[in-house]
Amino acid sequence: MVENQEKTESKKALKKEAKKAEKAAKKAEHKAESAQSSVSVSSEEDVSVGKYGTLPLIQSDLSAPKRSFIYVKDLDDSLTGKQVWVRGRLHTSRARGKQCFIVLRQKEFSVQILINVSESISKAMVKFSSNISKESIVDIEATVAKVPSAVAGCSQSDVELLASQIWVVSASVPQLPLQIDDAIRPENPGAEDSLNIRVNQDTRLDNRILDLRTATSQAIFRLEAGVCRLFRDILTSKGFVEIHTPKIIPAASEGGANVFTVSYFKGSAYLAQSPQLYKQMAIAADFEKVFTVGAVFRAEDSNTHRHLTEFTGLDLEMAFQYHYHEVMLTIGNLFTEIFKGLRDQFSKEIAIVGQQYPAEPFTFLDPPLVLTYEEGRKMLQEVGETVGEEEDLSTPVEKLLGRLVKAKYSTDFYILDKYPLAVRPFYTMPDPHNPKSSNSYDMFMRGEEILSGAQRIHDSEFLTERAKHHGIDISKIAAYIESFKYGCPPHAGGGIGLERVVMLYLGLDNVRKTSMFPRDPKRISP
Amino acid sequence: MVENQEKTESKKALKKEAKKAEKAAKKAEHKAESAQSSVSVSSEEDVSVGKYGTLPLIQSDLSAPKRSFIYVKDLDDSLTGKQVWVRGRLHTSRARGKQCFIVLRQKEFSVQILINVSESISKAMVKFSSNISKESIVDIEATVAKVPSAVAGCSQSDVELLASQIWVVSASVPQLPLQIDDAIRPENPGAEDSLNIRVNQDTRLDNRILDLRTATSQAIFRLEAGVCRLFRDILTSKGFVEIHTPKIIPAASEGGANVFTVSYFKGSAYLAQSPQLYKQMAIAADFEKVFTVGAVFRAEDSNTHRHLTEFTGLDLEMAFQYHYHEVMLTIGNLFTEIFKGLRDQFSKEIAIVGQQYPAEPFTFLDPPLVLTYEEGRKMLQEVGETVGEEEDLSTPVEKLLGRLVKAKYSTDFYILDKYPLAVRPFYTMPDPHNPKSSNSYDMFMRGEEILSGAQRIHDSEFLTERAKHHGIDISKIAAYIESFKYGCPPHAGGGIGLERVVMLYLGLDNVRKTSMFPRDPKRISP
Repeated sequence: MVENQEKTESKKALKKEAKKAEKAAKKAEHKAESAQSSVSVSSEEDVSVGKYGTLPLIQSDLSAPKRSFIYVKDLDDSLTGKQVWVRGRLHTSRARGKQCFIVLRQKEFSVQILINVSESISKAMVKFSSNISKESIVDIEATVAKVPSAVAGCSQSDVELLASQIWVVSASVPQLPLQIDDAIRPENPGAEDSLNIRVNQDTRLDNRILDLRTATSQAIFRLEAGVCRLFRDILTSKGFVEIHTPKIIPAASEGGANVFTVSYFKGSAYLAQSPQLYKQMAIAADFEKVFTVGAVFRAEDSNTHRHLTEFTGLDLEMAFQYHYHEVMLTIGNLFTEIFKGLRDQFSKEIAIVGQQYPAEPFTFLDPPLVLTYEEGRKMLQEVGETVGEEEDLSTPVEKLLGRLVKAKYSTDFYILDKYPLAVRPFYTMPDPHNPKSSNSYDMFMRGEEILSGAQRIHDSEFLTERAKHHGIDISKIAAYIESFKYGCPPHAGGGIGLERVVMLYLGLDNVRKTSMFPRDPKRISP
Repeated sequence: MVENQEKTESKKALKKEAKKAEKAAKKAEHKAESAQSSVSVSSEEDVSVGKYGTLPLIQSDLSAPKRSFIYVKDLDDSLTGKQVWVRGRLHTSRARGKQCFIVLRQKEFSVQILINVSESISKAMVKFSSNISKESIVDIEATVAKVPSAVAGCSQSDVELLASQIWVVSASVPQLPLQIDDAIRPENPGAEDSLNIRVNQDTRLDNRILDLRTATSQAIFRLEAGVCRLFRDILTSKGFVEIHTPKIIPAASEGGANVFTVSYFKGSAYLAQSPQLYKQMAIAADFEKVFTVGAVFRAEDSNTHRHLTEFTGLDLEMAFQYHYHEVMLTIGNLFTEIFKGLRDQFSKEIAIVGQQYPAEPFTFLDPPLVLTYEEGRKMLQEVGETVGEEEDLSTPVEKLLGRLVKAKYSTDFYILDKYPLAVRPFYTMPDPHNPKSSNSYDMFMRGEEILSGAQRIHDSEFLTERAKHHGIDISKIAAYIESFKYGCPPHAGGGIGLERVVMLYLGLDNVRKTSMFPRDPKRISP
């Protein structure tokens, strides 16, 4: 798959290669011709000859027709009587007497197409149309017609298309490993559906390119792109600079736990579990406010609904003047802005996903709610859940707290500030007034943690002391500690798991739904 | 560095941990107090007591002063007579009699600060100021004063600051492994400089956080962030969707050449050499137009000015109607728009970099120049450089062609279309009319390739045939080939190396200058 390989092959090898390529290309040409000729076989009696068939492989022939295609979503009754060309997927086709009904799909949009035997449309053409495999890509020439009553099951319900030409651009094999209609069936536990066929997660993921064709998947990944765009645009407008941090790192900075090893020429290296070290180094290097979007890797053998071994991290780090709350509130407001952006720009996508996976709309406050860890503990105490002063919250307790917060404050997003020092990483700044506490925070969506952050220790001696205290091999993080020897402003930041944010925003039950090609301990394919 | 680790530790362990943490925090508190008290030692005779010293570690104490800092770049004579606070790096300090001159630096901006012995400023304060290590972060309270003649060597040349307080926020160690002034000295081969000290590449990279503090580095990485932003914004406005593709992949799709191996639980996996497979699968999954920005990995043992083992790929893929030129011209115009954006939005950064590394301004045409491979060969032939019809261009020949194109068409950017089939990857669509040619293109900046792209074969049978022809183990790319069995629109795309684009745009000599923490066969640190 490498296109810009070094050009080291000898001329001799190239020439041999060229001969072979020539043969292959000729074969392809021949194949294309025979595909075209297959249409003309029945030409003598067929009034529709030249109006249907299988196109030769589109190889960018200069004689290609100059056509302007219309998007399915733009088909409505203002176009009644107009002739149009559309390219889309044949979602279903069904012959009924002298007619063939096709549903043509384009992402989440669909339109009904009618092919009627007539003076210019032969039985052979109708038969051909009804035999095209589902999921094939077809080009159709048709006239837009208003329908007396709404077409059921099509997004474009005001019109149908009366086809005059139909050409297969790329045929699907007839047997599909999953049906798109099954893959998009609403999951409504209460409903007594006549059809209960669902596609299980592994079948979906094994055949991801089909599963991704559903309106739901299309909407999920457009919204995910939106989260990334909003994250970057909001931070850029606040003066943050985007950076790129290395994924290949020299040492397993946490003593080898949960880290993937890479063979690196004659030695070995590791895959970064976060851009932590490097975004802090960018702060020490005077970038002041930075963010980075990129893959992070966790070699955790956790097979849960919310763990991936590779996910997309949205990370930021920022110098502050005197108090880490300057950063914490910047991040809190970033989330508020993202939620507003999603609500305002992605309402259609949210509605589409909700049809298949119903969820309560996501609620948030502006400015966001900030609770201290102590306040959180008290709320839990009130319902009989005791959490020690220096104990972390377990996942079920986090979810419980999320429900309590939702009930009391009507928000699905909140910030929990001042975690116990004991449960945070070595580089977390201790609280100056309470030795058991720290300048750290988590942020939650629907009761699940989606960001962890803190003020970091920006003094190399103190950092060394804390690392030793945590039993970390100082020699392995020497370059990191070194970064703080040449003057570094106080700073704080956080890391967000993109797939979790999208999962929780949409109220989905599994992070694999929001990772295009998810990786977990049991899956690295496709 | 992992913040959202699973919370599996026992309560017992946590409590033990908490005790240790408490001790550490107390120690930190103590340290902070003693730092503060170091100032008051000389309080009895010192008129400036409480006006200078070393601040305690900024731990986000709630009693922190509420000050509004001004950016150095905003200091000008409109502020004459005003009292301001600034935080910045002490770039240099120099005592002269009863005065101390400080140059305070903030990214590429700097201002002169004067500390004069006076009624309110003691000799001790002046001495303290002149002894602060270079690169320390300091807070200074000062009055803005207009200067009779421009301050040499400072970006803010109209004013100086008369300090009334100076506090060290984060001290640097006194010995720096490199001097910022040396690191930013112009590289002008012709000039007879009095000072010829330069910092070599390895010293720079070993101490990257210092090297990144130069105005040049700051400008390079702001411009790099700009390239990314323009790439995404332009494509988003054209309806492209951003996707994230996995870096951990199941098989070395090119038979193991140039690929890094990862140990993956009990098995192994590989690091993706490009998002090729996955962006094409997104097209087969109806995303129509996609782009992705992310790390790509090449295990090539190439130690050149333009090779990295990990770099940032800007990739895109797009379905087209009938001709891959629809995509090629979309990419060509994308570059034109990026170049316009850089020219219009980053002129300051370009000028800063040019001061250290002089280069001819980057030129381009709108619309971009497209030449065929055949035309390129003829231009080379005319100057006596023979390239075979089915031979690739070597790097020196590419550079020569770049110079010929520049001389003839006055452009540093051009597209070379229709490469010989023999020199392209197996998934490249052959030319339908010339079996020796293919529907593929490279794009060049200053004579170096920065994008390689093509129409891809979207038919699984033909793709299989071509893969076999290239001697590729079909079983290893089964999921990829499978993707084209269920109908796929014709498509084309390309992949861009971000660091190379920035290097060539700015006319730099080494890609390590445009990678924040570069990785090559000999370097994975810091």
